[in-house]
Order: sequence, then structure tokens, then C-alpha cells
Amino acid sequence: MTRLLVLHGPNLNMLGVREPGLYGSSSLEAINTRLEAVAHAAGVTLECRQSNAEHDLVDAIQQAPAHGVDGIIINPAAFTHTSVALRDALLAVGLPFIEVHLSNIHAREAFRQHSYLSDIATGVIAGLGPMGYELALTALLETIERN
Amino acid sequence: MTRLLVLHGPNLNMLGVREPGLYGSSSLEAINTRLEAVAHAAGVTLECRQSNAEHDLVDAIQQAPAHGVDGIIINPAAFTHTSVALRDALLAVGLPFIEVHLSNIHAREAFRQHSYLSDIATGVIAGLGPMGYELALTALLETIERN
Amino acid sequence: MTRLLVLHGPNLNMLGVREPGLYGSSSLEAINTRLEAVAHAAGVTLECRQSNAEHDLVDAIQQAPAHGVDGIIINPAAFTHTSVALRDALLAVGLPFIEVHLSNIHAREAFRQHSYLSDIATGVIAGLGPMGYELALTALLETIERN
Amino acid sequence: MTRLLVLHGPNLNMLGVREPGLYGSSSLEAINTRLEAVAHAAGVTLECRQSNAEHDLVDAIQQAPAHGVDGIIINPAAFTHTSVALRDALLAVGLPFIEVHLSNIHAREAFRQHSYLSDIATGVIAGLGPMGYELALTALLETIERN
Amino acid sequence: MTRLLVLHGPNLNMLGVREPGLYGSSSLEAINTRLEAVAHAAGVTLECRQSNAEHDLVDAIQQAPAHGVDGIIINPAAFTHTSVALRDALLAVGLPFIEVHLSNIHAREAFRQHSYLSDIATGVIAGLGPMGYELALTALLETIERN
Amino acid sequence: MTRLLVLHGPNLNMLGVREPGLYGSSSLEAINTRLEAVAHAAGVTLECRQSNAEHDLVDAIQQAPAHGVDGIIINPAAFTHTSVALRDALLAVGLPFIEVHLSNIHAREAFRQHSYLSDIATGVIAGLGPMGYELALTALLETIERN
Amino acid sequence: MTRLLVLHGPNLNMLGVREPGLYGSSSLEAINTRLEAVAHAAGVTLECRQSNAEHDLVDAIQQAPAHGVDGIIINPAAFTHTSVALRDALLAVGLPFIEVHLSNIHAREAFRQHSYLSDIATGVIAGLGPMGYELALTALLETIERN
Amino acid sequence: MTRLLVLHGPNLNMLGVREPGLYGSSSLEAINTRLEAVAHAAGVTLECRQSNAEHDLVDAIQQAPAHGVDGIIINPAAFTHTSVALRDALLAVGLPFIEVHLSNIHAREAFRQHSYLSDIATGVIAGLGPMGYELALTALLETIERN
Amino acid sequence: MTRLLVLHGPNLNMLGVREPGLYGSSSLEAINTRLEAVAHAAGVTLECRQSNAEHDLVDAIQQAPAHGVDGIIINPAAFTHTSVALRDALLAVGLPFIEVHLSNIHAREAFRQHSYLSDIATGVIAGLGPMGYELALTALLETIERN
Amino acid sequence: MTRLLVLHGPNLNMLGVREPGLYGSSSLEAINTRLEAVAHAAGVTLECRQSNAEHDLVDAIQQAPAHGVDGIIINPAAFTHTSVALRDALLAVGLPFIEVHLSNIHAREAFRQHSYLSDIATGVIAGLGPMGYELALTALLETIERN
Amino acid sequence: MTRLLVLHGPNLNMLGVREPGLYGSSSLEAINTRLEAVAHAAGVTLECRQSNAEHDLVDAIQQAPAHGVDGIIINPAAFTHTSVALRDALLAVGLPFIEVHLSNIHAREAFRQHSYLSDIATGVIAGLGPMGYELALTALLETIERN
Amino acid sequence: MTRLLVLHGPNLNMLGVREPGLYGSSSLEAINTRLEAVAHAAGVTLECRQSNAEHDLVDAIQQAPAHGVDGIIINPAAFTHTSVALRDALLAVGLPFIEVHLSNIHAREAFRQHSYLSDIATGVIAGLGPMGYELALTALLETIERN
Repeated sequence: MTRLLVLHGPNLNMLGVREPGLYGSSSLEAINTRLEAVAHAAGVTLECRQSNAEHDLVDAIQQAPAHGVDGIIINPAAFTHTSVALRDALLAVGLPFIEVHLSNIHAREAFRQHSYLSDIATGVIAGLGPMGYELALTALLETIERN
Repeated sequence: MTRLLVLHGPNLNMLGVREPGLYGSSSLEAINTRLEAVAHAAGVTLECRQSNAEHDLVDAIQQAPAHGVDGIIINPAAFTHTSVALRDALLAVGLPFIEVHLSNIHAREAFRQHSYLSDIATGVIAGLGPMGYELALTALLETIERN
Repeated sequence: MTRLLVLHGPNLNMLGVREPGLYGSSSLEAINTRLEAVAHAAGVTLECRQSNAEHDLVDAIQQAPAHGVDGIIINPAAFTHTSVALRDALLAVGLPFIEVHLSNIHAREAFRQHSYLSDIATGVIAGLGPMGYELALTALLETIERN
Repeated sequence: MTRLLVLHGPNLNMLGVREPGLYGSSSLEAINTRLEAVAHAAGVTLECRQSNAEHDLVDAIQQAPAHGVDGIIINPAAFTHTSVALRDALLAVGLPFIEVHLSNIHAREAFRQHSYLSDIATGVIAGLGPMGYELALTALLETIERN
Repeated sequence: MTRLLVLHGPNLNMLGVREPGLYGSSSLEAINTRLEAVAHAAGVTLECRQSNAEHDLVDAIQQAPAHGVDGIIINPAAFTHTSVALRDALLAVGLPFIEVHLSNIHAREAFRQHSYLSDIATGVIAGLGPMGYELALTALLETIERN
Repeated sequence: MTRLLVLHGPNLNMLGVREPGLYGSSSLEAINTRLEAVAHAAGVTLECRQSNAEHDLVDAIQQAPAHGVDGIIINPAAFTHTSVALRDALLAVGLPFIEVHLSNIHAREAFRQHSYLSDIATGVIAGLGPMGYELALTALLETIERN
Repeated sequence: MTRLLVLHGPNLNMLGVREPGLYGSSSLEAINTRLEAVAHAAGVTLECRQSNAEHDLVDAIQQAPAHGVDGIIINPAAFTHTSVALRDALLAVGLPFIEVHLSNIHAREAFRQHSYLSDIATGVIAGLGPMGYELALTALLETIERN
Repeated sequence: MTRLLVLHGPNLNMLGVREPGLYGSSSLEAINTRLEAVAHAAGVTLECRQSNAEHDLVDAIQQAPAHGVDGIIINPAAFTHTSVALRDALLAVGLPFIEVHLSNIHAREAFRQHSYLSDIATGVIAGLGPMGYELALTALLETIERN
Repeated sequence: MTRLLVLHGPNLNMLGVREPGLYGSSSLEAINTRLEAVAHAAGVTLECRQSNAEHDLVDAIQQAPAHGVDGIIINPAAFTHTSVALRDALLAVGLPFIEVHLSNIHAREAFRQHSYLSDIATGVIAGLGPMGYELALTALLETIERN
Repeated sequence: MTRLLVLHGPNLNMLGVREPGLYGSSSLEAINTRLEAVAHAAGVTLECRQSNAEHDLVDAIQQAPAHGVDGIIINPAAFTHTSVALRDALLAVGLPFIEVHLSNIHAREAFRQHSYLSDIATGVIAGLGPMGYELALTALLETIERN
Repeated sequence: MTRLLVLHGPNLNMLGVREPGLYGSSSLEAINTRLEAVAHAAGVTLECRQSNAEHDLVDAIQQAPAHGVDGIIINPAAFTHTSVALRDALLAVGLPFIEVHLSNIHAREAFRQHSYLSDIATGVIAGLGPMGYELALTALLETIERN
Repeated sequence: MTRLLVLHGPNLNMLGVREPGLYGSSSLEAINTRLEAVAHAAGVTLECRQSNAEHDLVDAIQQAPAHGVDGIIINPAAFTHTSVALRDALLAVGLPFIEVHLSNIHAREAFRQHSYLSDIATGVIAGLGPMGYELALTALLETIERN
């Protein structure tokens, strides 16, 4: 059975509260619940984790192969722009992954235009809100099947 | 009935032939046919156009409101990085649009890292091949409904 | 009889409709009509053309000497920032020309701060709306007389 | 009765003497005299001042509202590229103003390509010689009327 | 009763020991004790926390509203220049905060000239040693009262 | 008796009138009066000067040692970003000084991110409105005592 | 029989008229006629096309393989510096091509120092006037034979 | 007895598994075991720690002096390029340290060309694989003896 | 009789007092006295002026031709790096001038590496202390004679 | 009789051995022999020199006029990107010269994109292997005849 | 028998005399003598050469394969930052080499942060004084054995 | 007896022939002869050397202390902008030196604006032709006496 890992970066636990004009009004739980339902319908297992700590996310990525994970959906949030450690962890495990951003990072501060992950990702989805995760799930499954 | 416009930029008529390692082996016709099927299933009208000429695409965008178009999916291809005219046309009509790239532009030449459209798009999807268009269709419909 | 050519770049056919807060509420036709009246009063012939296609504008500039044109007023719009071909066409014919912008490009996106035409223009007028064309007409006539 | 202030920056008192190939052969007095005639004909009051001192120009701008000035035409000359104080004075009084340059600054040294004033001006006119002031007068009056 | 949170970033637990010529000879405890005395005298509650871990500081900021915190004084130390996560946490909670630096960061390495927090802070105080915290406390209270 | 000099740069005589949303509604006189009261209470002499002229401020700094001044509080305003002469005057007299900005310059135009004075100042206070001067007074007195 | 395509970019139809000091006095027809003679002597077929429209050149490149073209000589003129679409078309067809410039682009404006084509060309010849095309023909034939 | 601390940054626990073409096939344990043997032979005590968490490494550095550590060998891995906190911790304790990289960082992505540690290190060794640690041990001992 | 003007920029009236390690211990008067003696010996008239005000120096340059000045020695001090007005005044009068710096500006802050005057000067002398003025006098006289 | 000088820069004596995938398999001798044959056939004298020393090449250029050389073909190799002395020597003698590169320098490291010679060359030929020299010979002869 | 070449760049013949605070007090002879002893003990032949001339070093590298050299230790000194010819020579012979710097170049002038050799070296050792050569010898032997 | 060394860099042996509009019509011999006369009159010994080879100049500088040289006048010509080896040689011997340029390098190509020597020179003289050397001689003698 295909197994996916969804990683949410720092401050995403504040969704629904944090700047709703920018990030929408759904809580992270609501997003995860819906994603799990979609995954269930597609017959795949899905684990969701959020952390404000870079090392937690690095650990989760490192352990993914041993947990049978076939692909990763990651919204690295602030770490998109500052974390080489996440990049190196993703390079180390070599799993396909899709980078998701709720807001359109291209319409924000200049420093948000650069990602340490995009060039090694399978693909990138930005600006489409919580649906971005669902689209990523669809695309990641197709990528896994194709390989 | 919701009406969508799909615009393909220069050289996308070469899909399937052009650098298949980078762009995949589907022809543009195959992509359009499948997109139309998906649209049909979703109960929306969809028109697909490809052009190597910037002005053709500008014209198509300008005429979209008069044609009852509710949203645009655009793969601007080479024009992503060089066309202010496309940006201005999209600003002029004010329709929601999603920018799609077949390949992961973040993993390619430095000049492909900048888009004249992304910051005014609803969202951006890159690197997911022909499926990117289908995901964009789903997301665009949701965007249109939400507004 | 002095003969002038007025060239309008891409998306200017959308004037009045396009972002009126930025570009004003006059249509391009209204602007042209008024310019022609001013020209007529000044005893000069004036031809106005708009195109979304760079090559149309290049062609019009190339043919200007053969049509007896003595000077050009050009609002290159989006091509201001992207077209070396327009620059080369203007260098090729060597006619005096004045660059006009309806909006104040200095108060907009960074990429609009650079023009491929300004350094070879007789002069530049920006931010003064449709009146900018009329001022350009006055200035161009004086330039032509002085030479 | 509408009242306008015309400010000339440093070294413009040398006009006619200073690099005539670049700045023309009219003296500043001749320019002012003609401008006053045009203003008189248009039924508006016009005051002209030139100074080599940044603080004189800042003072003049600060005092403009108390003097009943409705708009400003300013050729900041060298201060265009170096004076944040002029920018701040113009922001402080909030009057509409038009920036004028006799020569085409776009065709000169790289440091003359940047203005501390243009993005907060109503408009900018460059390269059209003494006529630039007259065009600015016309445009400024229209701007004042429109508001 | 007004409640303030004081956050000290990485290596500030070394104060008094660490490069005393640069950071002074007071220990962090001495600074906190004095700050608490000042706060007590002003009738406000003050909590001080130091951490070498970015996620601890992010957590503390996220929890501040639930703890009734009205404003934050933060010396982000090394994270000033590297942490988008702290920026996002402060944006998420929307509390007024003042950024404090013991040393004059403007007189140090080039990379210390940029802060990810300053543009979203109420104010910034740098170079004034431990007194900087006390001044920040005074200013933060005034800010809270004014709102 | 300790003697302090407070220098206000260009356009600060417009306080209360000038962009009150940005700079607050206090007049410069009100700020000076309050500062003098605070100084009087602290048993120190305080002289306040404002000028729109760079050379006036340079002169005032040069003459400070002969006038028995022990330290300087300076809000260089627009000259922050353009005046090497002020920097050199402050280097020449070698008095401790604190740089104050009413608004948060880090949240404004890019050119306001650089100061010619900050790296040679004792400290910098920005964004805290008129209170910034009072905090600077406290800090400057402590600095003078410590030396 | 070997078949070559010669593409001339925008404004090259003005050769002989356009800035003869820079581009020489030969007309494009004269250049093409001589090239065809050289080709004929070498026993190869040669087709010459000029266009001011980017899409015409893109179309010509796309159709080259179907027309049996073995290699391309291209003087992209202004498009050298602005057209990613031409680059993508040349990448798509994968034919060997040589980039030719009549004038020495290295001795001209800074923006002419960058080409979107050079790094994917077989070779580049610049500054040698109309002879540059003939040299390119010789080199292209050798390249085709060697492969 | 001389005491050394060896710190391994994030993802180095993946050695042997992670990109072996780049980082080699030795596990971190194997490297540590061999290093300890070398240290033992040289009559020095050596402690090895790896962490994916920046704060763990900062803590370890801060505690080094209290643990009697005389010098540090650090492979900061991803933190090389992003951690000012590590730099500040090393500055705070003032122990001699040598920076080691397994791969040749100069032959990789541009962002890996900058280190926040190199300019304050005793020395830097890069590209020599696991042997780099042993060379660093030799050099660090000599540095400690010389002081 | 040849007539020379020596202009000293801001803060040079502080010479001997100001940072003597950098600028030497001679007062400006001593320098001027010695320069006048040298000039007298060479049979030329010399006038020395110092000002902290940019406009004073601009005025002095503008009036130089009317005063019969044949050449200028200028130490622009801080204005070297900030004054386009001085550049324009020197361009306006067109007299030969030599730029002198007491200290070696190349060994100081980065912003002191750029001069707005050097490229239009006859020559530049830096780092040679008060003797630099005397060397400039010798060189300027030779330049004047040669023309 | 026309006399040409062919200069080969550093490491070109390694041709055939050095990176044959990049530079081809012909030895420098073979290239020179063939060039001499072509020159002989064209009735011109040709001298070929290679040196790894910049000063040898500078000397050869300086002596060229005295040796009756009418034009130079130079492959500056590594010196292309680092030698101002070669540029100055070529400027000093003022002979027409053509710059040749065996490999396509535009497809290589970023530092190879800049040449200290191209803007003062008659023309540049790159990427065409040994044939590039022969094409340069043809072009140089034509240039010499035309002058 | 393994054979190594040690190359010392310009000014290294001044070691012991030249800036001993930066480069240490050992003469180059002392360093070479010790290196030869270490090599002898390891059973390898070692030749040391120093030159102030770039071409001497290029020649030595070119001749290394013919002399049976298996690897190179090079301290390129000043040429590190300026010599593409050394890079090309090392690329041409393809021998493994280690770049050594006596001082920590990362703690010096900005231009010393870039090396034309590092990205093609096996490894780089900097800041460890004369011992750096010995460490390089150890590492180079290991590299040669491993291949 | 004071002993000075005068070093002339590459292509200065071409003086009088090389671009006389830029460098003047004096030959290097004439310049040296006159300098020697001036030196003789001042009672100092002077040796002049020119070389097109960087290593010759490096050697000459290295040997200067052993030859009893007290100071150096150097016109590094092209090496000004490219030679770190000359910088290092001058740093190694630690003699006072003055950098001389015949032409005004500030009025030439951008790459001539940077010198690898100026920041470590006693002083710099540029644009004053052959007289620059004589002024440097005067200044160097004064510098030597003062020390």
C-alpha cells in the first residue's frame, strides 16, 4: 500500500488564526482531515506532521524510507527560504516530493522568491490555498505510479 | 455555464517531439483532448489555443471577457520570462488565471527563475507535466466558485 | 506639410477599460480623435496606429520615411521594457521621436524603470495621462522646425 | 487665482553659458520671462526661483502652501540624483508637482538615470529643452483643475 | 494588568562571559532582574525567556496571546539575520514588539546589517547595551497605552 | 554640568503638519519643550537646533566641543542617507552621539535602509516617535557617565 | 543534397540603409544573392528568410526538419538579446546552427553583450560584416559533414 | 590531558547511505571509531557528537570550556551556510576550531561557497573525505601546543 | 598673471584637530600659508576658500571665470562622494582642475572609493597629505601653460 | 606581400592531448601546418607563435609593426579573461586583429563569458574548432584589403 | 614509486621574511626540507618548485605527466585569484591536486575569497601554516592509492 | 644616500608611440632621463626599470631591500587591475611606494577604476602625464624623510 508523508513547517499550526487574509480560514486540522479523507478514498496511507523545529522535519524526512514512505508533500513555510538542512535531508533520502505553498509567494517579500527546495522537487504548487495539498497528493501518486 | 480558456505559449506545438526527456512524450493534442474530457465531466466549457506569437495570446486574453471566459489557464512557455505585454493583458482583463509549467523551471537555466506573470497569478503549478493542466483546471474552478 | 506618426503599443486598445485608476477613463479612440483635432489646428497631418504585435510597430517605423513622416510619437507600453527590435527600428530610420507614457512608470514595478528607447529619444513624457500625447505633439513640431 | 511655483536647481543660473550643446543657448531669465508670459496668458500667477543651495529649495517648498501655491514645476538639476531632503519636503507639502529636465538624462551618465523625485511626481518631462517648462505648466494646470 | 514578554535569542545566556568588550559585563540574569524591577515599579508583569533554539522562541511567540501578553521585547541575536520563522510567528500573533540589540550591529559584519524583523517591528534600539531593554520597556508600554 | 546638543535635520520643522500618519501629530516645538523639561529634571543643559541646511548642522557639530557639549542626539532625517559631511563632522569632534528616527525607517523605501552615521554612533533608536528622543537622552547621559 | 536555412532577424531588411557606418552598405538582397552563389558552388541548397516577427522565425525553425534542413545560419539581430522563444525553438529541433552578427556586438551597448542563443549554438561569428555569413556557411557544412 | 570535541552537523548521521557518490561509503560511526583510535594513539581525549538541531550544537559549543575542551573540529554541514548562531557560539567560547567538509563544497551549488564560520576558524579542510577529520585532528593538536 | 583658486570642502577647517592620525597635524591656515608662498614664488596669484556648504563651493566655481581664474585645485572632502552639483559646476565653467585628497581614500570606507569629480578632472592626487596641494599647484601650472 | 601573425595563448601547446572532447584531437602543429598551407595558397606570409607567458605574447604584438605584420589572429585562451596587458598591447600597435576560440566559450564557466579583447577586435569567432583559424585568416585578409 | 610535485606560487620565496604575523617564520627551504623528509619516510619521491612567473608554473604542470608525476600539491598564492592559465593547465593534465594556503584566506580581503582552482581540486586546505603541506601530502597519497 | 626604484609596467616601453592622444608624446627614455636629472639634483640615487613581465616586476620589488632601496615609484599599467602578485610583493617588502598613472584612469573603461595596489600605497597620482613621476619623486622623498 502506497504511503505518503505530509510535512507542515513552522507557524502552520497557526492556520485559521494567522493572517487569514493571506493564508485562509481553515485550521491545519481541517486541512489534514480532508487530506486524509482524500487519501483514504484513493487507497493510500497518509501521515501528517507539523513542527516549528527544523530538526523535527529533518528527522521525519530521514526516517521516511524506514517507515515505508513512498513520497512527501512538504509545505516548508519559513524554512523554504532558510533551510539547507531540509534540502540535504531530502537529497539524502531521494524520495519524490512536491513543494506546496498556501499563499502565492511570488506576490510577497523579495526574500520569499527563493526556495532552497524547488530545484530538487518533483514539482511546486503555490497560491492555491488548502487545495494545493490535494492537488499535490494527486500529482505525487501519479509520479509514484509512473516510476 | 462556466467557460475556461487554456493558452499554450510558443513551441508547445512541438510537445512530444521537443526534448521529450524534459517535456514528456504527450502531444499537445493529446493534452488538450484529455483536458476537454475532464472539463466536460465537470460541466464546464473549455477552449484551447496555442500560438508562437505573443500578440495572438495578447489578443486572446483581451477578447476573453467578451467571450464569457471566467478564468484562464496559461502555460506561457518562453514568454514567461520575456513578455510584459502578456502581463499587461492579464492585468487589463482582471480574470483569475493559473500559470502552468510542464517542466520544473526551478531546475533549469537561471533566466527561467523569473516570471513576469507569477506575482499576479492566482497560483502557479510547475514540474508536474501534463497533469499540471488538470490540477490547474480543478483549482481554477474552485477559485471561480469561491469568488 | 509636416506629417507625424503616432504609435500605440500593446494593450493600449484597452484604454478606458483597462485599470482605469492607473490609465484613466478615456478610450484610445477619444485620445486619437482629440490628437487629430489638435494636429489639424496646427496644420499638420497625423496618423495613429495601435498594435499588440511588435513586428507591426517595427514595420510602421521602417515605412515611415517612405510615407513622408517627419517625426514619431510613441507610447511603447509593455514593449518599452522588452523590445530591442523597436529600438533598432528607430535607430534605423533616424527620425526624431518622443516617448510617451500615460502612467508614471517611475511609481510602478522595478522592471518598468528601464526603457530600451529613452536614451535615443528626443525626449520623454510620463505620468501626464492623455495630455502627454498633446504635449509631445507640440514638442515634436518644435523639434522638427528647429532642425 | 491659481498660483504656481517654478523651482530651478543648482547651476541652472549658468544656462546659456553652461555646456550649450547639452543645455541650449537660452538664459534662465529668458526662460522665466517666457514662462511668465505664458502663465499670464493663462490667467495664473507664477513665481520663479533658482538656487544652488538645497536648503533654499527645501525652504521654498515648505513655504509654498502658506503662499497659496497650488502646484510646483521643479527642475531639480543635480539634486535630482542626490537630495532626499527635496523629496521629503515635497512629500510634506503634498502639492502636485512636475519634474522637468532640459537635457535627456537617459542619454547621459548612469548616475543620472535615478531620480529621488520621479516616483512621487505627477509626471516627468525630459529632453525637450526650455519648452519642457511650458509643457509642464500646461499639464500642471490641467492636473490642478482635475483635482 | 499589562503583561510583557522578553525574549532573548541564542548565545545571550553567555552574556558577561561572551566577548565582554562587545556585549558588556552584565550577566543575563542581572539584566533580567533589573528589568523585572523596572517592570514591577511600572506596575506591569514581565516574563523573560532565553533559548538557543529557534522553535522555542517561535513557540513562545505563538503562545503569547493565550498567555495574555500585550507586547514583546525581543533581542533575536543571531536569528535576527537568519530566521524567517520568527518573522512569521510575530506576523501571526500581531502583537506590538520592539527589537533590541546590545551591540551596535551597524558597526559589525555586513551580514548583521540586515534584520528579518525590523520592518515589522514597532521600533528598533541598537548599541545601547542592557539599557536598551529598559528603554524598550518604556517605549513598549507607551505604545500599548496609545493603542 | 553636563551639556547636550539635540540636532534635528531637514523637514523636521514640518512635524505635526508633515505626513502625520507617518511622523505623528506633535510639533517640533512640543517635542523640544518636553525634552528640555526632562533634561531639566535630570539636571542637564540641553540645546535644540533644527536646520534644513547641511552646513548649519555641520557647523553646529564642529562648534559643539567649544560650547562644552558632552554628547549629541541627532535625527539626521533625509541627511541620514546622503550626508558624508555630517559623518565627517561627527568623526572630527569625536563626541558620543545617538541617532534617532521618528518613523521606522526599516519599513520604508529601500534607500532609507542605509545610514551614513549608524556605524559610528553610540546607538540607534528608530520607530518610537517623539519618545525616541527621550530614550536617547537617558541613554546618552548613561554613556557619558560611564566614560 | 545538403540543405541549409539562413534566417535574418528584425530590421535586417533595412541593411544598406540602416546605420551604414555600423552595418555596412550591402543590401540584404546582395548578401543573400552572394550567399546563394557560394552555396551553389558548394553543391548545397540554401533558403534565406528575413522577418521582423519573432513568431515567423520560430515557425521557420520548427518547420526546418520537415523541410529537410540540415543546419541553420541565424543572425537573430535584436532577438539575440530578448527571445527565449527562438532559443526554445532551436532546442526543440536540435539542428546544428551558427549565430552570426554583422557588427561587433561586444563593442556596443551593455545589453548587447548577452545572447540567449550563443551557449546552445555550434559557434558564433561577430563583427565580420556580410563575410560572416559566408564563413558560417563554410563552418556549418564542415560541422554537418563531421557529424 | 588535551581534550577535543568533534561536532557533526545535520544529515551527517546519514553518511554511507546519503549520496555515497558525493559523501563516500563510510558510516559516521566508522569515522568516529577511527578518529577515536587516532586520538587515543596521540594520547588525547576525543568526544564526538552529531545533531540535526542547531541548538544542540550551540549548546555543545557553549559547554565545551566547562568540560575542559581545548579545541573543536566541526563539520557544520548545512549549517555552514545558514547559521549565525553557531558562529556566535564559537566566538563566545573563543576555542581554536577547524572546519571540515567531506565533499569539495567549491564544486557544488553557489550557496555552498559561503561559510559563516571560515573567517573565524583556525583553518578549513574540504574535499578530502573522512581523512579530512584526521588531518584536522593533527592540525588542531599542533595549534593547541603552539599556543 | 596666472590666477588659481584653491577650494577646501567640508570639515577641512578642522584640520590639525580632526583625526590627526588620518589627516595630519597641520592646520588649514598653515597649509594655505605655505601654498600661497609657493604660488608667490612661482609668480602666480592664489586664492584659498573653505566652506562646509556645497552651494558656497558651487558659487565659487561659477564665479571663477569672471574672476580671471585659470585653474582650480579642489579637495572636495565629503562632497567627493555625494555632490553632483559640484560636478555640474565644474563642467559648466570648463576650467582645468586637480582633485586632491589628504588621506588615501582607497584605504578607507567603500563609499569613499567613488568620486563624482575624478573622471572630469585633469588629474587626481591622493594620500600625500598637505604636500598633495603643492604637487597639484605644480601640475596645474604646467597644464595651464601647455594649453 | 601581406604578412600575418598568429598568436596562440597558454596551454594551446597541449592541443590534441588536453581535454579532446572540448578542444578536439588536432595538435597545434597540425593546425599551424594547415594554416600555413592556406596562407601560402593565398599568397600571404604567416608566422605562428605559441606561448604560456603573457609577456611573450605582449612582446610579439609590440614587435609586429616593425616586422611588417599587417594583421593578427589571436586565440588568447586563458588570457582572454585575465589580461589587460594584451589589450593594451593590441591598442598600442593598432593593427586589425581577430579573436578566435576553439571551444564555444559561451557554453562554459561564467568567467569565460567576458573577454578583455573582444570590444577592440575586428571580429570574434568562437566554437568552430581549428576551422575557426582558417575563417579568421579569410576575414582578416578581406579586412586588410578593404582598409 | 609514487612521485609528487609541490608547486609554490609568487612571493612564497619570501616566507619567513614576508609578513611573518600572517605567514609564519619558517623559510620556504625549511618547509621543503621537512616535506621531503616526510615524503622520504612515506617512500615517495617529491619535487618542490617555486616561481614568481605564471608561465613557469604552467610549464611545470604541463610537463608533470611526462615526468611521471602522480599528483600535485599547489599553493598558488596570488595566482589563486587571478590565473585562469593555471586552471587550464591543471584541467589539461588531469592529475589529482590539492590546493594549500598557509594563511586563512577567508579572513582576508574580499578578492581572496575566490579561487580559480578550488572547484577542480581534489581538496583544499587553508589556514594551517606549513603543516598544511604535510596534511596535503598525506591526503594526496591516499587519493592516489584509492584511484 | 637615499635610493629610489622606479618601476614601469607592461607596454610603457611603447610610450610616445602608443596612443599618444592618451599617453602623451614623450618616450620612456625621455621620462627616465628627466627623472634621473631631478633625482640627481635632489641628491638621491634612482634606478628605472620597465618590464612587460609580471614576474620581473615582482622580482625587482623583492630584491629592493637588499639593494638598499628606500622607496618605490610604480606605474603598474595594465597590472594595476590584474596583479595580486605585485600587491603581495609590495606587502612583503613593506617599502613606501607611490602609484602613478599617466592617463586619468577614472575617465576610462570601468575595469580601470579598480587597483589592486592603491589601498596599500602611500599615495596615488593619476592623469598628470610624465610630470606625475616627478611629483611622486618629491612626495616619496618627503615620506621617507618623515619616517
